[in-house]
Amino acid sequence: MRLHELQAGLGGELVADASVPAPGERLIRRIGPLQGADAGTISFLANPRYRAQLAETDAGCVIVSAAARDAVRPGCVALVVPDPYLHFARLTQWWAARTRPVAPVGIHPSAVVAPDVVLGEGVSVGAQAVIESGAVIGDGAVIGPLGFVGAGVVVGERTRLAPRVTLMPGTRVGARCLLHSGVVLGADGFGFAPDQGRWEKIEQLGGVVIGDDVEIGANTCIDRGALDDTVIGAGVKLDNLIQIGHNVRIGEHTAMAGCTGVAGSTRIGRGCAIGGGANILGHLEIADGVTVSATSVVTHSLRKPGHYSGIFPIDDNASWERNAATLRQLHTLRDRIRALEKQSKTS
Amino acid sequence: MRLHELQAGLGGELVADASVPAPGERLIRRIGPLQGADAGTISFLANPRYRAQLAETDAGCVIVSAAARDAVRPGCVALVVPDPYLHFARLTQWWAARTRPVAPVGIHPSAVVAPDVVLGEGVSVGAQAVIESGAVIGDGAVIGPLGFVGAGVVVGERTRLAPRVTLMPGTRVGARCLLHSGVVLGADGFGFAPDQGRWEKIEQLGGVVIGDDVEIGANTCIDRGALDDTVIGAGVKLDNLIQIGHNVRIGEHTAMAGCTGVAGSTRIGRGCAIGGGANILGHLEIADGVTVSATSVVTHSLRKPGHYSGIFPIDDNASWERNAATLRQLHTLRDRIRALEKQSKTS
Amino acid sequence: MRLHELQAGLGGELVADASVPAPGERLIRRIGPLQGADAGTISFLANPRYRAQLAETDAGCVIVSAAARDAVRPGCVALVVPDPYLHFARLTQWWAARTRPVAPVGIHPSAVVAPDVVLGEGVSVGAQAVIESGAVIGDGAVIGPLGFVGAGVVVGERTRLAPRVTLMPGTRVGARCLLHSGVVLGADGFGFAPDQGRWEKIEQLGGVVIGDDVEIGANTCIDRGALDDTVIGAGVKLDNLIQIGHNVRIGEHTAMAGCTGVAGSTRIGRGCAIGGGANILGHLEIADGVTVSATSVVTHSLRKPGHYSGIFPIDDNASWERNAATLRQLHTLRDRIRALEKQSKTS
Repeated sequence: MRLHELQAGLGGELVADASVPAPGERLIRRIGPLQGADAGTISFLANPRYRAQLAETDAGCVIVSAAARDAVRPGCVALVVPDPYLHFARLTQWWAARTRPVAPVGIHPSAVVAPDVVLGEGVSVGAQAVIESGAVIGDGAVIGPLGFVGAGVVVGERTRLAPRVTLMPGTRVGARCLLHSGVVLGADGFGFAPDQGRWEKIEQLGGVVIGDDVEIGANTCIDRGALDDTVIGAGVKLDNLIQIGHNVRIGEHTAMAGCTGVAGSTRIGRGCAIGGGANILGHLEIADGVTVSATSVVTHSLRKPGHYSGIFPIDDNASWERNAATLRQLHTLRDRIRALEKQSKTS
Repeated sequence: MRLHELQAGLGGELVADASVPAPGERLIRRIGPLQGADAGTISFLANPRYRAQLAETDAGCVIVSAAARDAVRPGCVALVVPDPYLHFARLTQWWAARTRPVAPVGIHPSAVVAPDVVLGEGVSVGAQAVIESGAVIGDGAVIGPLGFVGAGVVVGERTRLAPRVTLMPGTRVGARCLLHSGVVLGADGFGFAPDQGRWEKIEQLGGVVIGDDVEIGANTCIDRGALDDTVIGAGVKLDNLIQIGHNVRIGEHTAMAGCTGVAGSTRIGRGCAIGGGANILGHLEIADGVTVSATSVVTHSLRKPGHYSGIFPIDDNASWERNAATLRQLHTLRDRIRALEKQSKTS
Repeated sequence: MRLHELQAGLGGELVADASVPAPGERLIRRIGPLQGADAGTISFLANPRYRAQLAETDAGCVIVSAAARDAVRPGCVALVVPDPYLHFARLTQWWAARTRPVAPVGIHPSAVVAPDVVLGEGVSVGAQAVIESGAVIGDGAVIGPLGFVGAGVVVGERTRLAPRVTLMPGTRVGARCLLHSGVVLGADGFGFAPDQGRWEKIEQLGGVVIGDDVEIGANTCIDRGALDDTVIGAGVKLDNLIQIGHNVRIGEHTAMAGCTGVAGSTRIGRGCAIGGGANILGHLEIADGVTVSATSVVTHSLRKPGHYSGIFPIDDNASWERNAATLRQLHTLRDRIRALEKQSKTS
């Protein structure tokens, strides 16, 4: 791909010194990091901290902000844009659209599709997929191989299901979503009533509603609601192996990293960032714009935006053992300090 | 559905004031929470704390205990029962049985079922499912679409496998179980012997035995035993994304919330409640009736019933940073207190 | 199986007292632990702590080191070897090879295999599996039922995929690997650029490269790289429900227990042991030979080999509540100690 094609598609200003007579003609073969780049690589500088790498990289072209353009090595073309990281993101999309095979339109002969399924135009149904009665698949949607789409499920336009995704009956997925392999939407929420030492199942009668432009990572589970629905807002991004309990509501454009768990009926606001391995207990309210550090446990509602943390510090094992032993007597330390303070005042 | 049908099926006493001449004739269209209910909704009050909502709800009928019946709004029918939450659970089952489609009896033509598989009466085998040689499927069991049932596996009567469940050879599942999508029973336990910096595999020769009335959540894994079996007792309820290591034994009617991990050879008693995201290390004994708070790490055996916790408190990030820094010097604080105490005695 | 066959296959010295005239003729029917063994059981003593069990076990044969041979009960045959645990591991392999059915060579008629797939000799492709265009499957490899092997994927010789495994395009798996059910290799890494409160997807253009002799547990996910590949070294062992982020590199023979998460771009050295439920944050360096205790959170690089821990101690709930409350004021305790110390010096 030549730089002028890329510029025509995505914008930006091509800048080079006199040693590059025709910067737009430069040929690009891959996108790569500054380190390890070669003359056929287009790279980017998103973090000004790494600005010094601009002078050393062998990349043929670097996406930079106007502030960084002068730091680019002579002979390297600068593609000057307002937000280099965002431009890089769009470049990866542009690149993928030109290099990745497109799922073939039509129903693979091995798929099992109920006769009353409503298929939009340009839908792709992969090998061995199963689509049950009454499902509605929007235009341009892709149901990957070995996927299961239950009775009455709605899949929005241009939404893509990777291979081996399960959408249980009662699930509605918006447009332009991307669901990775192993995702399970609409399994039963975890609800039981105690009955003399046994558990009586509470049938989960709600569904799962996923907004537009949502991405859901591999093997992530979102349970159906008990009575109402579990609702994931538009633009939400969930990483792999996340568990979302029944009746949870997640506001628009919130992002959640892998291995996180959200217990039932919790409401998370818009634009939150939840670190990996975090756990959010049930029936809580998380305000818009909350950041939770990785692995923190949210035990109470967080009603104000802000950055919250609770990570046990890692240490060499011997130090940890000493500290952990003291930690179990922590409240006695406080009492001893109090006693000393009292004594010191009276003396 | 009319209230008298519901009463006939599940019991309870219908009570209403004079403004409702025929409470049994009232028509119910959905089950829902007190808030947001309408005249066609049946709701319930399980927690006396929310008793005030009984006067405000628009629900057509509310399931309540005798103690709460007088708090119900005039014009609303009270269904008086000994245990409203349990009654609600049974109502959801009654409702689901009447509204949900039943899996069609028979083998879907796309399924691959070995000729010597023993199928009980009324079994349903879904599209694209695979059942290997020697498997035995009990009466009324459902093997969901895209499921895998390995050679010699036993599935009990009326047990239901959601789509995309894996039962590896050596697995036996009891009667009336419910396994959600993505469950994997009988993958190898994690066992290796060190050999000069490499790992030599210990083949896992045991199986997995699941009791009756067990529910297992989406993408949960239960490993086969190394030599003996991994055993899950009757009535156990496991949520999503749980990992149960080899040779673990879980006693009857224990419930475990999502994202929990139990390492190999641990034995958990009957009637325990394990919170979400908890981790229980290997080779431990957990007594009957133990409650473990969500995300706690069980590092030693818990030999007495009781409630155990270990959660790092979440805080605003700045406070956390200060406390975490001090935490790493915790044992020195103890030493400094000791020194002060000594000094104070001698002075 | 007779002991002399087993000795001929795996080595070791058979030793017995005069009450056993022909130790090699003894018949073995199962491998089992010392406790609960019977005359047809072969058992082993790996941990000298349990040496006393040697005098009590009913096992017909026990694998022991030379140092423990004299502790074996009269009438029980000792199989004396240099490393009993390693010998036991090899015995399980030897046993499994003789007792487990072998996957049938050939392509199951229900599988969907693209015409240009390159299949080695002796390959087994299970029922309902899907193999896309351009994939290359090495000699003796097993693609389990309901598996998905994407376009251009490479699977090495004698590698086995359990049922329901997903290998997305861009994945290369080495020889003699074992991937358990539900594994997803090559789903997108979690990468987005912020754009005015929304997230712009960074297409993940790298792949996943798995070395030889790697084992990957059920429902574990390894994401494709953003630009370069995610790389798992030879001999690595990953347990179930592990999340490996994009561009992570794991050195050879590192083992990682279940429910662990490794965030993007972290590099883990060779021969590390990572406990279950641990979380390792992104962009870190973990040296060779590092041990991380279960559930610890690695928040900074660990540049020296050693054993690191960070586990919040579990306690009865009342004690935990007292300590947790104090923990949130921990830095004030330190200040109060400092004040007391100052005072004590001046007095």
